[in-house]
Amino acid sequence: MRELDPLLASRVRFVLVGTQHTGNAGSAARALKTMGFTRLTLVTPSRLPDETALAMAAGAQDILETAVIADSLAEAVNDCHLVLGTTARARRIGLEEYTPAQAMVQVRKSLGAQADGEVAIVFGRERTGLTNDELQLCNAGIMIPANPQYSSLNLAAAVQVLAYELRHQLTVDDASRVATATWQPEKAATHGQMEGFFAQMEGILDAIDFHKGREAKSALYKLRRTFLRMPMEEKELRMLRGILHDMQRALKIANDR
Amino acid sequence: MRELDPLLASRVRFVLVGTQHTGNAGSAARALKTMGFTRLTLVTPSRLPDETALAMAAGAQDILETAVIADSLAEAVNDCHLVLGTTARARRIGLEEYTPAQAMVQVRKSLGAQADGEVAIVFGRERTGLTNDELQLCNAGIMIPANPQYSSLNLAAAVQVLAYELRHQLTVDDASRVATATWQPEKAATHGQMEGFFAQMEGILDAIDFHKGREAKSALYKLRRTFLRMPMEEKELRMLRGILHDMQRALKIANDR
Repeated sequence: MRELDPLLASRVRFVLVGTQHTGNAGSAARALKTMGFTRLTLVTPSRLPDETALAMAAGAQDILETAVIADSLAEAVNDCHLVLGTTARARRIGLEEYTPAQAMVQVRKSLGAQADGEVAIVFGRERTGLTNDELQLCNAGIMIPANPQYSSLNLAAAVQVLAYELRHQLTVDDASRVATATWQPEKAATHGQMEGFFAQMEGILDAIDFHKGREAKSALYKLRRTFLRMPMEEKELRMLRGILHDMQRALKIANDR
Repeated sequence: MRELDPLLASRVRFVLVGTQHTGNAGSAARALKTMGFTRLTLVTPSRLPDETALAMAAGAQDILETAVIADSLAEAVNDCHLVLGTTARARRIGLEEYTPAQAMVQVRKSLGAQADGEVAIVFGRERTGLTNDELQLCNAGIMIPANPQYSSLNLAAAVQVLAYELRHQLTVDDASRVATATWQPEKAATHGQMEGFFAQMEGILDAIDFHKGREAKSALYKLRRTFLRMPMEEKELRMLRGILHDMQRALKIANDR
């Protein structure tokens, strides 16, 4: 067991989406800090951190005070190379589903693969979790194994469990790990870069009439799953976008004639 | 991953000693229940479970209502075969100190060794933890690794972490004790199907003049790496080929005009 490297810890943000009760944001801040993490992002919270939040944060008020407030999850994770969303229904919407340990192995690998890599662990609303659209922004889902008859972890409890598991994976000695040979990119594309790709692709699908009257969303979701399943090299994405660019040019010529 | 055996779970009790805030007992009950455990013992709580406790327990009121109230830790663990106490100072008083994972492996072994074996996981007071005398009743200590500058986990958060780790150790298959997070498709595309995709792509790259005089091979190699890195679902590939087909149609129209 090693100490947690604060630089490594500082590249992981915990993102709470649409939190209803400020006390939960405070408890989550405390949970993070106990495990040595410092970065909290609040996406469209019902209220900004107040007295209740500060009280629940106990000695972790600094985490609340430096929390980033964002208008959307897309904005909050735009510069991230790996985005994992907690959910109880990842498989239903075609998202890969990791256990906490599996997820945090991925986080460790992602942080290790690239010195400036950024990671987001995303938590949904107290009652309703993340929307399907929000889950579609994620590379994969994390499901905390729970009692099938009563799986409702408190928000801060879920943050505590995942922060605990992440700390564990970031501090366990290399020797006590079993090597898993999974590929990691040299320089991964950011979430924002991937969104640019999807937007460009969307325009092309319209131009070639791929949907033929069917709802576009379903196809776009499937494409997201195919391309977000694993990190993509920035240079690979550049090539794909170059291909799309030339397609647009070719189609434009077609349209212009 | 197997289901948690309820009989196994029912032989583990979570013991809270001298809890000051009844809300914490309620939150702990909720934490236990989410992980599939049912037995809570309260040793000399400041107050018996009240409205606050019931509110914090959310859907786990049944755990609070069936909680055992005990006059001393000795009484609470009298019939147990293994007693583990959470603490930050086990070593100082000569107690063996386990990480949560090590501790829960011990619990698993203890439950497996004896069909009627009983186990207690003990938690101390919010501010002061367990006394040295109470720790001396324990077989070993459990220390949750935490931020050395801020190690103060909320009581229910500590219960959540240990219940999570115990559930994990009691449900993980022997074969998969080592977590590996590698995605596997339901029905992977064959190599031949992938070749068909590459051939189709190659034709389109020519049609949109992607190479612009450069050698085609280099770009095609890179595309292969991007798409062959991990197995692709057959149905995903079918969609990609559908997209390429519509592109061909669109480009053909362009060429024909």
